Amino acid sequence: MTTRPVFFVSDSTGITAETLGNTVLTQFDGEFHPVRCPFVTTAQQAADVVATIAEAMATGVRPLVFVTVMDPAVRAVLDGCPGVVVDLVEPSVLVLEAELGQKASRKLGRAHGISDADRYDRRMSAVEFALEHDDGQSVGALGLADVVLVGPSRVGKTPTGMYLAVNHGVMAANYPLLDENFFQQSLPEVLRPLRSKIFGMVSSPNHLHRIRSERRPHSAYASVEQCEFEVRSATTLFQAENVPFVDTTSKSIEEMSATIVQRLGLRQ
Amino acid sequence: MTTRPVFFVSDSTGITAETLGNTVLTQFDGEFHPVRCPFVTTAQQAADVVATIAEAMATGVRPLVFVTVMDPAVRAVLDGCPGVVVDLVEPSVLVLEAELGQKASRKLGRAHGISDADRYDRRMSAVEFALEHDDGQSVGALGLADVVLVGPSRVGKTPTGMYLAVNHGVMAANYPLLDENFFQQSLPEVLRPLRSKIFGMVSSPNHLHRIRSERRPHSAYASVEQCEFEVRSATTLFQAENVPFVDTTSKSIEEMSATIVQRLGLRQ
Repeated sequence: MTTRPVFFVSDSTGITAETLGNTVLTQFDGEFHPVRCPFVTTAQQAADVVATIAEAMATGVRPLVFVTVMDPAVRAVLDGCPGVVVDLVEPSVLVLEAELGQKASRKLGRAHGISDADRYDRRMSAVEFALEHDDGQSVGALGLADVVLVGPSRVGKTPTGMYLAVNHGVMAANYPLLDENFFQQSLPEVLRPLRSKIFGMVSSPNHLHRIRSERRPHSAYASVEQCEFEVRSATTLFQAENVPFVDTTSKSIEEMSATIVQRLGLRQ
Repeated sequence: MTTRPVFFVSDSTGITAETLGNTVLTQFDGEFHPVRCPFVTTAQQAADVVATIAEAMATGVRPLVFVTVMDPAVRAVLDGCPGVVVDLVEPSVLVLEAELGQKASRKLGRAHGISDADRYDRRMSAVEFALEHDDGQSVGALGLADVVLVGPSRVGKTPTGMYLAVNHGVMAANYPLLDENFFQQSLPEVLRPLRSKIFGMVSSPNHLHRIRSERRPHSAYASVEQCEFEVRSATTLFQAENVPFVDTTSKSIEEMSATIVQRLGLRQ
């Protein structure tokens, strides 16, 4: 089967065009080759993209062109391309124009709502907080945390916390569970006052074994037995202490983060 | 003006529904109150959302309901809600069905394409790399970096690097420019072999002054004069060394990251 070129054309970062476009593409069979075209904000830039799309016609299959662009002049240029244009925004804009009884401004502006100073500052602070409170390094300011991720080593606490910080501005600390916590079946002392902010993470013993083996092959730490013990103990502990927790084995970082935000009622 | 409730209903994280929905909403005047409903994958969960939407009718304005759900049975339940349903996926699916001559599978699967093990491992490694190579802390493995963010203190290198790591799996180090670099107008020695991977960051002196003042108020470090000097020197240095750079002042972390990925030709 011929690989079909797919263009994601956006007046901003192109993340939304690509994410939503991929969601749609996964509903179909076929091979697709993605090309991301971010920050297309002028008619000239659009004309350059159209030229690239025209070149891609040489593959023999018509390219798909997912578009999130507000400016009508820029969109008009893109509409003239030889590919199949899939406008990801306009159908929704038309529905809202009818419901709200207004014409859409169709201006690029805070289109993706991501560039105000407060939001930037909050995320910068959250990343610093996550760096300082990674792996139980510092406990002084733990009281400021929105969430404290708790679980065995290598279940994904650090990347999940970083994702929460940099994408959502959530103050996320993380704290490891160690053998003493498993044997005593109790949460670390320092976390007791933070009960309502704790979110547990586990993964399957095999998954943990594989990840730990990359770091310390053939160690007791990475052994299947140790991983099984830790996962079983952590699960029992979370259940006994009534701490919400997720199994991270088959979840993406985005899914874990969304789950945590939802379960703890964090709203950004 | 009455605030209108807006529901973002998704069978996955809801990030796309909210981002695209907000893009559309910014085109209209009005006050909107967002409610995110992620992981709606069963008819029962959809019925619960419909009940919440029905309650929101009490505000006196019809709620807007942005939907990214693939399963027809779940969508059918949502279509029965009393709000204005804006389907963000179906119009594009119909265009592709016509072009590709296939029926869409309409199955939730890897809909948002984000949960395969390789991708997870890569992002986990990238976050670790970013932690170890933050602020020039370690230089041993700098050669493994996909990008080295360089600039004065507090221009946003750390959050941008973390965003690149956790969202794109990019190995991002960051390295500060110090007075000696400004006076000698040269890049730090250790970065010279990495020329092609360096990306510069500056911001406006006033912006830098404000951010630094939060950390060390009334210090020489935070003074407008020092900030002006550093920004001017860094800009001259980047230009002389032919290093690509961005002004981060009015850019979001997403925008900076997309710019860096595009300019350095990093593809994920």
